[in-house]
Amino acid sequence: HLLDFDDEIAGRGIHPSSVIFPVVMALAEMNGDTGRAVLNAFTVGCEITSKVGAMLSSPGFSGKIISGDGIAGAVGAAAAAGLMLCLNQEQMESALGLACGGAGGINAGFASPSRALPQGRAAMAGMSAALLAEKGLAGPRQAIEGPGGLLDCFGAGGSRDPSAALFRLADPYDVLQPGIILKAYPCHSAAHTAIDATMQLVQQYGFQPGQVESVRVEVPSATLQSLPYADPRDGWEARYSLNYVVAATLLYGQPLLEQFADAAVQDSAAQDMLGRVMVAPAESSGVSDQDSGRLASLGCTVSMWLLGGREISHRVEFARGFPELPLDSDELDAKFLYCSRYILPPDHIDGAIGQFRDLANVVDVTGLASILGG
Amino acid sequence: HLLDFDDEIAGRGIHPSSVIFPVVMALAEMNGDTGRAVLNAFTVGCEITSKVGAMLSSPGFSGKIISGDGIAGAVGAAAAAGLMLCLNQEQMESALGLACGGAGGINAGFASPSRALPQGRAAMAGMSAALLAEKGLAGPRQAIEGPGGLLDCFGAGGSRDPSAALFRLADPYDVLQPGIILKAYPCHSAAHTAIDATMQLVQQYGFQPGQVESVRVEVPSATLQSLPYADPRDGWEARYSLNYVVAATLLYGQPLLEQFADAAVQDSAAQDMLGRVMVAPAESSGVSDQDSGRLASLGCTVSMWLLGGREISHRVEFARGFPELPLDSDELDAKFLYCSRYILPPDHIDGAIGQFRDLANVVDVTGLASILGG
Repeated sequence: HLLDFDDEIAGRGIHPSSVIFPVVMALAEMNGDTGRAVLNAFTVGCEITSKVGAMLSSPGFSGKIISGDGIAGAVGAAAAAGLMLCLNQEQMESALGLACGGAGGINAGFASPSRALPQGRAAMAGMSAALLAEKGLAGPRQAIEGPGGLLDCFGAGGSRDPSAALFRLADPYDVLQPGIILKAYPCHSAAHTAIDATMQLVQQYGFQPGQVESVRVEVPSATLQSLPYADPRDGWEARYSLNYVVAATLLYGQPLLEQFADAAVQDSAAQDMLGRVMVAPAESSGVSDQDSGRLASLGCTVSMWLLGGREISHRVEFARGFPELPLDSDELDAKFLYCSRYILPPDHIDGAIGQFRDLANVVDVTGLASILGG
Repeated sequence: HLLDFDDEIAGRGIHPSSVIFPVVMALAEMNGDTGRAVLNAFTVGCEITSKVGAMLSSPGFSGKIISGDGIAGAVGAAAAAGLMLCLNQEQMESALGLACGGAGGINAGFASPSRALPQGRAAMAGMSAALLAEKGLAGPRQAIEGPGGLLDCFGAGGSRDPSAALFRLADPYDVLQPGIILKAYPCHSAAHTAIDATMQLVQQYGFQPGQVESVRVEVPSATLQSLPYADPRDGWEARYSLNYVVAATLLYGQPLLEQFADAAVQDSAAQDMLGRVMVAPAESSGVSDQDSGRLASLGCTVSMWLLGGREISHRVEFARGFPELPLDSDELDAKFLYCSRYILPPDHIDGAIGQFRDLANVVDVTGLASILGG
């Protein structure tokens, strides 16, 4: 999550695995649990995080609270940890209630080195809630839907019916519908269609960066709100800059982690290209699909004027890595290798990929935990 | 705070020392700091907690967020911890911003065994924020007043001017004006005037509990909102029951911790007396004094009808322990003794009282920390 390269429930702005996986894996390592137990608790934790996030969600919500991860994630983490600890029903209710008491996190800082703290704190709140409940601490009942509960404190007020979300738990799973984004690029997912459109123009027309006179990027205005930095000062802000990701793609192709280093953002070539990129809100239905929580269209149109007056344009509806265009198995392996290469030796990387692919049949995940430890 | 016996800033519903003192004392113990350094950081932490609480506060606020301690307390704890760690200005700004990211806690559970978790979590959020800032993690700037900051996320919206609160920092200190309640009874402070009025009636007229036919308690309706349990099921709810504290006072005199045990609440004598107590909202100015954050009147009138038809009545404006009627030095010593007698040996209690009274001159608080450890 710190690198904005983690997975996301499409259209929900929720990143459950950044909160849930460390919790599940830590408890599994402690107890020598099976891969199947890890998968089971992980799935339940992600599902509850996403559905609670949707329950709290509304047009006014995302502007107020950082991604919902700090809030809904605490509840999902408690559920996942509770399953790993085999809590009974009364303990599990306490765990969920206690986790609600630790839910929080503000939006300021989302484009800074502290951007992943809410996720870490949600993991801690959920895990400590389950451990306290196991030891016998009684938590508040109805802490999600009751008076003074999660919806009262953090919900946008009246726009959603909590029971509707409850009835949709696992029907379908959110990881299936709306589905997961496994990101191809380490920046805000709302900027991904612009990257793909830009890359496709470069591939189709074969021009050089120096030939680009000006660029116009059109996305729905709702999408644009997630990308407030037209003139980013550093790599943190650049991840939320439609202008920058397009400029970087024109200069270097598919953006990698290197393109979000402060020096890369402040580089004169990048700054020069940034000056040629204009962003405009597109006319769009932009209507939220209440049922799936997705915008009707996240599509992006990139138009360019090349030296000599030529105008070219391309529209992309869904980016690579989105549920509609999932990365294939080799691409996912390559992403894991790319992300882990600085911290894990090559044989650990191969071992981890092998065990993750066969996780349902791993008898004891202690070995996997050890490999991931470097 | 768990026993509802801790101090409180009058009229603010804020209990800074439950959050700040453990943070300051832990860091002071770690570094062998002086008593003066402890007092200094403790005072600053309490002041910032209370002023930030006031800044967030509004008529709609207290119903939404548990006491403000979980939110404002995190900021105050970061400030106090930052002072103890001698952070420079940039680090201190980071610490405050990082603490805002850990601010949270919901109202559900305030009458349950988990009621003190928000305070503990605020202490942890503030302390970890200061330690992270010391190690170089940059926090968000303007995390209190800026977009997506504390006021945006948790404030009641527009009713207060943050700069006004800023200008009032230490001018005067909130511990001086509105002042501190050092509670005489282990229950919600809003119920304290009713206890005193009841005790004064018993002392003046010398009747027995069995002579009481019915009781009518009148408090301002705003006060009554803090005491929602007319028919408490256990000791947790009993602390927020005007009916119960009056019934318990009639039966046993000044309520002690014993009167808030579950068995005491469920006892047939208490239940019988509870049935004779009626609570009614009083006509009252009830207008909040914006400047001090206090209600214009918290006064309570207790009227009783005794067997034989006699009616007696007494009105109390301020309870014992409130800034207007502070406990004296002997009463405070007695409270400390009463609260610590189950966990500290007698010589530790004497030693702690001695050192606290002379804290400004203690060269190294490690000894005090050791005494308090039992």
